[in-house]
Amino acid sequence: MAKKTLTRLIRHKNALQRFKKLGFIKVFSDNLADATGSTPSQVRKDFSLFGISGNKRGGYQINELLEQLNSLLGKDKIHNVIVAGAGNIGSALLKYEGFEKEGIKIIAAVDIDPAKHKPSGKIPVLPLDKMKDFIKKHNIQIGIITVPDIAAQQVLDIMVSAGIRGILNFAPIRLKADERIVIKSVNLALELENIIYFVSARDKEKKS
Amino acid sequence: MAKKTLTRLIRHKNALQRFKKLGFIKVFSDNLADATGSTPSQVRKDFSLFGISGNKRGGYQINELLEQLNSLLGKDKIHNVIVAGAGNIGSALLKYEGFEKEGIKIIAAVDIDPAKHKPSGKIPVLPLDKMKDFIKKHNIQIGIITVPDIAAQQVLDIMVSAGIRGILNFAPIRLKADERIVIKSVNLALELENIIYFVSARDKEKKS
Repeated sequence: MAKKTLTRLIRHKNALQRFKKLGFIKVFSDNLADATGSTPSQVRKDFSLFGISGNKRGGYQINELLEQLNSLLGKDKIHNVIVAGAGNIGSALLKYEGFEKEGIKIIAAVDIDPAKHKPSGKIPVLPLDKMKDFIKKHNIQIGIITVPDIAAQQVLDIMVSAGIRGILNFAPIRLKADERIVIKSVNLALELENIIYFVSARDKEKKS
Repeated sequence: MAKKTLTRLIRHKNALQRFKKLGFIKVFSDNLADATGSTPSQVRKDFSLFGISGNKRGGYQINELLEQLNSLLGKDKIHNVIVAGAGNIGSALLKYEGFEKEGIKIIAAVDIDPAKHKPSGKIPVLPLDKMKDFIKKHNIQIGIITVPDIAAQQVLDIMVSAGIRGILNFAPIRLKADERIVIKSVNLALELENIIYFVSARDKEKKS
């Protein structure tokens, strides 16, 4: 599946969950297009690719559609995740409530700083040197990196050697790994710099 | 400037700052390409577009290059930012150290929950209903939204009515605004769902 299609399907699924919470039973391609910034014909095309078809007049049954999307997206099982770095961003992710309903469960964090260790916490924070064994023991495939940029590549290497296959990276540096490893970076300062640049650029356009 | 070019220039600038910290005086397009995942010819092309040229043998002088990039990117001034939502993510951003060196300064947060208010904190946390006046008074142009999805659109509308021009949104919902407003969304659960899907897809490929 192309990455863009996947992202649209995940957005549709999230919108469906919101519609369901609001008490809706049925939904139309127009509703989904509006909620996700797509077009009705794109929505119908996306679903039809996977053999999901709506009734032209009646729309889609939300429950059926959710079930099919969840199975397609592998959402019917829980995915365990480990976080490296228990600083500001790492700690926020441990408490973030948006993951669990997507089947994402952070089961531990690690940090190099002994002051941050909480081996018996609800989500344990362990020493960095326990990470490799913990990943292997719990067969974790997904890791999140929130350590400082100078430590990030080393942490990634340990994760990969222990069996991690996909990484969400918050360190503002480019990480390298075997091409079989999926790495996605979120660089918060870069996002803000982009926004600031475009806001300033529009000011200049207006003045000239 | 195209968004892709901008992103590459910001990455180059960040890599240059790291090289400088390591004591480098000069840098070659190969070094920058390697650090940012680009190619040497792309690096030279990006810089030449803006009248920045290197000496083929001697490479670029880091200080000169940084000065030109900073001025080009509007990094020579401080950009004030307000955060709506002082929950896990919002609080982490208030303490995040990666912004200040990019000229980004969070000067206040707002929250609807009185338990979170700290009007005399180093970075004050104010009631939500003070946001509009605060933005106007300090002429803030950039806002970050970390409130729950059901509250996000309303917060955005208040921000825009007060003069905010660019928004970084963490609420997992699509926000709507006048096209002159720059909105960039970071959806953490969506990023992880993408990674999980591609890791699972590669498993299936291997098995078949």
